[in-house]
Amino acid sequence: MIIILTPEATENDLQDLVGNLKDRGYGVHISKGVEKTIVGAIGAPDEDKAVIAEQIESFRYVERVVPILKPYKLVGRDFHPDKTVINVNGVEIGGEKIVVMAGPCCVENEDQTMETAMAVKAAGASILRGGAFKPSTSPYGFQGLGEDGLKILARAREATGLPIITEVMDARDVGLVASYTDILQIGARNMANFSLLREVGETRKPVMLKRGLSSTIEEWLQAAEYIAGRGNYEIMLCERGIRTFETFTRNTFDISAIPAINGISHLPVVADPSHGTGKWSLVSAVSRAAIAAGADALIVEVHPHPEKALKDGAQSLRPDKFQLLMNGIGAIAKAVGRTV
Amino acid sequence: MIIILTPEATENDLQDLVGNLKDRGYGVHISKGVEKTIVGAIGAPDEDKAVIAEQIESFRYVERVVPILKPYKLVGRDFHPDKTVINVNGVEIGGEKIVVMAGPCCVENEDQTMETAMAVKAAGASILRGGAFKPSTSPYGFQGLGEDGLKILARAREATGLPIITEVMDARDVGLVASYTDILQIGARNMANFSLLREVGETRKPVMLKRGLSSTIEEWLQAAEYIAGRGNYEIMLCERGIRTFETFTRNTFDISAIPAINGISHLPVVADPSHGTGKWSLVSAVSRAAIAAGADALIVEVHPHPEKALKDGAQSLRPDKFQLLMNGIGAIAKAVGRTV
Amino acid sequence: MIIILTPEATENDLQDLVGNLKDRGYGVHISKGVEKTIVGAIGAPDEDKAVIAEQIESFRYVERVVPILKPYKLVGRDFHPDKTVINVNGVEIGGEKIVVMAGPCCVENEDQTMETAMAVKAAGASILRGGAFKPSTSPYGFQGLGEDGLKILARAREATGLPIITEVMDARDVGLVASYTDILQIGARNMANFSLLREVGETRKPVMLKRGLSSTIEEWLQAAEYIAGRGNYEIMLCERGIRTFETFTRNTFDISAIPAINGISHLPVVADPSHGTGKWSLVSAVSRAAIAAGADALIVEVHPHPEKALKDGAQSLRPDKFQLLMNGIGAIAKAVGRTV
Amino acid sequence: MIIILTPEATENDLQDLVGNLKDRGYGVHISKGVEKTIVGAIGAPDEDKAVIAEQIESFRYVERVVPILKPYKLVGRDFHPDKTVINVNGVEIGGEKIVVMAGPCCVENEDQTMETAMAVKAAGASILRGGAFKPSTSPYGFQGLGEDGLKILARAREATGLPIITEVMDARDVGLVASYTDILQIGARNMANFSLLREVGETRKPVMLKRGLSSTIEEWLQAAEYIAGRGNYEIMLCERGIRTFETFTRNTFDISAIPAINGISHLPVVADPSHGTGKWSLVSAVSRAAIAAGADALIVEVHPHPEKALKDGAQSLRPDKFQLLMNGIGAIAKAVGRTV
Repeated sequence: MIIILTPEATENDLQDLVGNLKDRGYGVHISKGVEKTIVGAIGAPDEDKAVIAEQIESFRYVERVVPILKPYKLVGRDFHPDKTVINVNGVEIGGEKIVVMAGPCCVENEDQTMETAMAVKAAGASILRGGAFKPSTSPYGFQGLGEDGLKILARAREATGLPIITEVMDARDVGLVASYTDILQIGARNMANFSLLREVGETRKPVMLKRGLSSTIEEWLQAAEYIAGRGNYEIMLCERGIRTFETFTRNTFDISAIPAINGISHLPVVADPSHGTGKWSLVSAVSRAAIAAGADALIVEVHPHPEKALKDGAQSLRPDKFQLLMNGIGAIAKAVGRTV
Repeated sequence: MIIILTPEATENDLQDLVGNLKDRGYGVHISKGVEKTIVGAIGAPDEDKAVIAEQIESFRYVERVVPILKPYKLVGRDFHPDKTVINVNGVEIGGEKIVVMAGPCCVENEDQTMETAMAVKAAGASILRGGAFKPSTSPYGFQGLGEDGLKILARAREATGLPIITEVMDARDVGLVASYTDILQIGARNMANFSLLREVGETRKPVMLKRGLSSTIEEWLQAAEYIAGRGNYEIMLCERGIRTFETFTRNTFDISAIPAINGISHLPVVADPSHGTGKWSLVSAVSRAAIAAGADALIVEVHPHPEKALKDGAQSLRPDKFQLLMNGIGAIAKAVGRTV
Repeated sequence: MIIILTPEATENDLQDLVGNLKDRGYGVHISKGVEKTIVGAIGAPDEDKAVIAEQIESFRYVERVVPILKPYKLVGRDFHPDKTVINVNGVEIGGEKIVVMAGPCCVENEDQTMETAMAVKAAGASILRGGAFKPSTSPYGFQGLGEDGLKILARAREATGLPIITEVMDARDVGLVASYTDILQIGARNMANFSLLREVGETRKPVMLKRGLSSTIEEWLQAAEYIAGRGNYEIMLCERGIRTFETFTRNTFDISAIPAINGISHLPVVADPSHGTGKWSLVSAVSRAAIAAGADALIVEVHPHPEKALKDGAQSLRPDKFQLLMNGIGAIAKAVGRTV
Repeated sequence: MIIILTPEATENDLQDLVGNLKDRGYGVHISKGVEKTIVGAIGAPDEDKAVIAEQIESFRYVERVVPILKPYKLVGRDFHPDKTVINVNGVEIGGEKIVVMAGPCCVENEDQTMETAMAVKAAGASILRGGAFKPSTSPYGFQGLGEDGLKILARAREATGLPIITEVMDARDVGLVASYTDILQIGARNMANFSLLREVGETRKPVMLKRGLSSTIEEWLQAAEYIAGRGNYEIMLCERGIRTFETFTRNTFDISAIPAINGISHLPVVADPSHGTGKWSLVSAVSRAAIAAGADALIVEVHPHPEKALKDGAQSLRPDKFQLLMNGIGAIAKAVGRTV
């Protein structure tokens, strides 16, 4: 931790700070510059550094505290340099092959789900997505079919052989959802729902953790650390766009987050161009970009009849457009030394 | 709903759209401009308009859909013009008197809580705040004392007579927390945790709903509508700053949200200058501003020893500074026709 | 400057860095922690520290550089603790009295300007605002009357005795605009137009510098430092809202910026609630809040017929509403020990 | 324009509005819904629609006005469906071949510029970039060599045969800079410097217009429309990242803007991964992504000695890393049917 004193700080203030830090077990280095005095505090590894930084920042004579972050112990590359590969019923995420998850935003009924599952499988997808529990900004919006939706997904898995991924929104439903699904999805709105993170951390199902709408990359990795801290290391990080001032797209897809995560974490990265853009006409281009930037997987919304979709119709691809997307990403994957 | 067609849309496309809308039960108005054709769709009040808007937006020949939002049925002023006043053990929030809630970020132990409670009462606060269940970005941070913390709060209430407010983070804990507290607080990270919103909506305890870090005013009101939809109308809306590019402050306190909410909703508005700024030196000025802008209440972090606080030390006021804050807001309250 | 090494940095890397820093004239302090090595570099005051920080950050073995900012030499409080008071033809900005500048967004014609000038004077404004050169996002929008507009403003000054403030957008027009106006306004879009800043810095006219739409407080102060660096110290800083994700208001008025600037700079602060909110119905509340938070002046758009205004009709007050605003701020000013 | 009335609007208000609109020459359509009345106003194409929308929005009984934007007449696809190809001394931007512009942030001296020019040419770049007039946030930062820098660039062009691109910051310098350079660059801070846009619009040099830090895609296109409005149609749009809450990267590169612009405009799109990320380690990945998403060109900062660069050292590639970037993008270009 680096502590910068105010210009008004006196020698007494400095001694007071040094004493305080030594009492906490820190080693202390003092640097007196022309305009500022800076104090480095080293060691004391067992305490919560963020808490102490805030305490020190409340001192009258302290201008600013710069924390020197501890590496993410479990999800960072520092202590785990090799990329994690997650095996979901034989589908490997994080390996050479780019994995495509596709399906409707919501499970609406058996026909729609089955038709979509067949179509995305035919086009080359490896995993079926579909929501049974749905977050809805409006209390009057569609909230999903619940367990009935999970049953439909399970039948679609049986019919197609595709593993399934579906969202869990409530810590009380983790057991139920885990009993049906192959991957548990944590949605963007729940990225900082720490009770839910701990609960999925207790399962041994792979988890796909979506980035929160206003979450920094560091906060996202800390959320993953919550899950890993309970012993579940099979975590994928899903970039799905952040909230910015731009309104042309629904969110701003943060393409740089993909190589950034690849640099600091060993976890596989999934790109969600459907939520990332909110417009079906931009989904293919952003899918290609994500793979070119190093994504390990895509998750794409496909609906046979977007004009009748109960949610996210504007960002869902029809099966024929999805087929074109699949055709287009093959060459990109090859260009970065991977396959689809 | 207003539908704007692309420049390429043909007469057939237009007829196709009109047919589709009529089948859904809409009345249709067509406006052909020099450059664009616009279709207004009116009526069909029982369907989910956001869903339909997304479906229509997926049409090839549709450029944009502009939803005409339904008024917030329960929390909007349209159908409920009178301001809501919430009575918490005799303390009225939303009335003439400005209510100040104050206390530590976290309940750390009985001495700290009791000392703070006495101090804020002496300075003029009417409600004691304190966290027993704490969200922490890092899994290695302090998570609160849980039920032990609730018990300490209850004893502080007994000793001081101040009603208490504390956060509930998990739908499973709502019953437990409600059995101790006088006001249930929903934190910013959980504003869109719809399971939790529904659960507090089932209680008959007043709820203070913090605005999400990246939530628009409209989304915030929709979250309140979730709670009201379960029959709990005693809701306060707490502005606590939004996330922006500015890093000088921890968040950007959205002062305009206060008169904006007062214009469109009948719910009382609480201002949280501690999280809104993240710096104790800015808390008093923003408190005065919030009251001048029309806030009904403040919630302020106070700690007898910020330099030892387990959380939020940098934004906590010492009791003597809090006393100065209280002294300063009296005149402001009077200037806007209220009292403290 | 604090330099944090990567976990992979070797002893040789450290010695390489130390040599490099000493060659540049820095004093060096090394702190080896459990997980990270940190190097403090002190001194070498004559170089451009931001440049050197970027150079050092490009080193393979450097994880991050934390600059220890030099105080703003000219506009910061460190070397100039007393508040600046600017005298504009007898009107003092930065003193005990809150100054209100008011008038139309654009000078449209003599009648409109004269009518507005009379009205705002009658209501208690001390300075007349009005745009002759107007930035317009669309090239097809109204761009102002140019010098004809300046002449109209000058006649309005003659008729009312009110000093005038008007915007200059082009470095080539600074002489012309300065020959008419009493205060030169730099608009938000030009806050980082450094040629223009230098040019107004060469004049001896007071300058009101608006904050850029996406400018941090530190960048804003650096822009002021450009002006002061040319010898013009009569600078007011105008908070007018920043761009965020919220669309309910045109911008997000950053109320915390007012006490923040008062803490770090000696320059007077002006609040612009008209652009800060974009909605006339919010202007009065935000005006009161700004004064409660410590603003020295307000700048408010007033138009006798907003429904015919050539720009910003939605955020302009009619004279009767402006009179109500003036009535409301008197009590607030008194509450914070000032007058209107 | 669509006008939504408040719930309180009376029949008289409606008639008042209709009269007002008809007086302005609009055709009017009224739609009375269950909860809201909506008025469509069509025609009157010669007026400034944004101005009128603001006027109407100031009416007491109007809740909201939704403008139906006029297509961008000159830079939009609606009236100009074919992609623009700009020929710069034989280098075509917007054609099949991906063009790479590379060079140092600043021209520091002849040796550095010449060495970099040779290196980027050897690696396959087609255009040399380099700044002679530099915007600097701090008034104490390096501001560029001015005309001496332009002369060095011209000699580097002579030596290598590469056309050059350099920034112009001041409307007074447009003639000077245009007399040396092959492409005029407008920087992000000047995107809304309308005097400068008009001035480069008067030249017949190609212009590269960078997106402003907080500019929406629509505002960016309107800025291009300013240039085109003066008769200069040879405009490239450069995505260089927008300002968001994320601090891990210097800016957030908006990858979706590339296909979005390709959909609505005929102008070529250039990607700037150096400013878009601010970190050299992310530049290659984002370059690949930009091409995969449909960019026509890249502009990349290369410096032979980033550790001595006078600006942007942290985001500059060494020549060997730039060679790797060039190697990597060839396959991506091929995958999207283009060449490098």
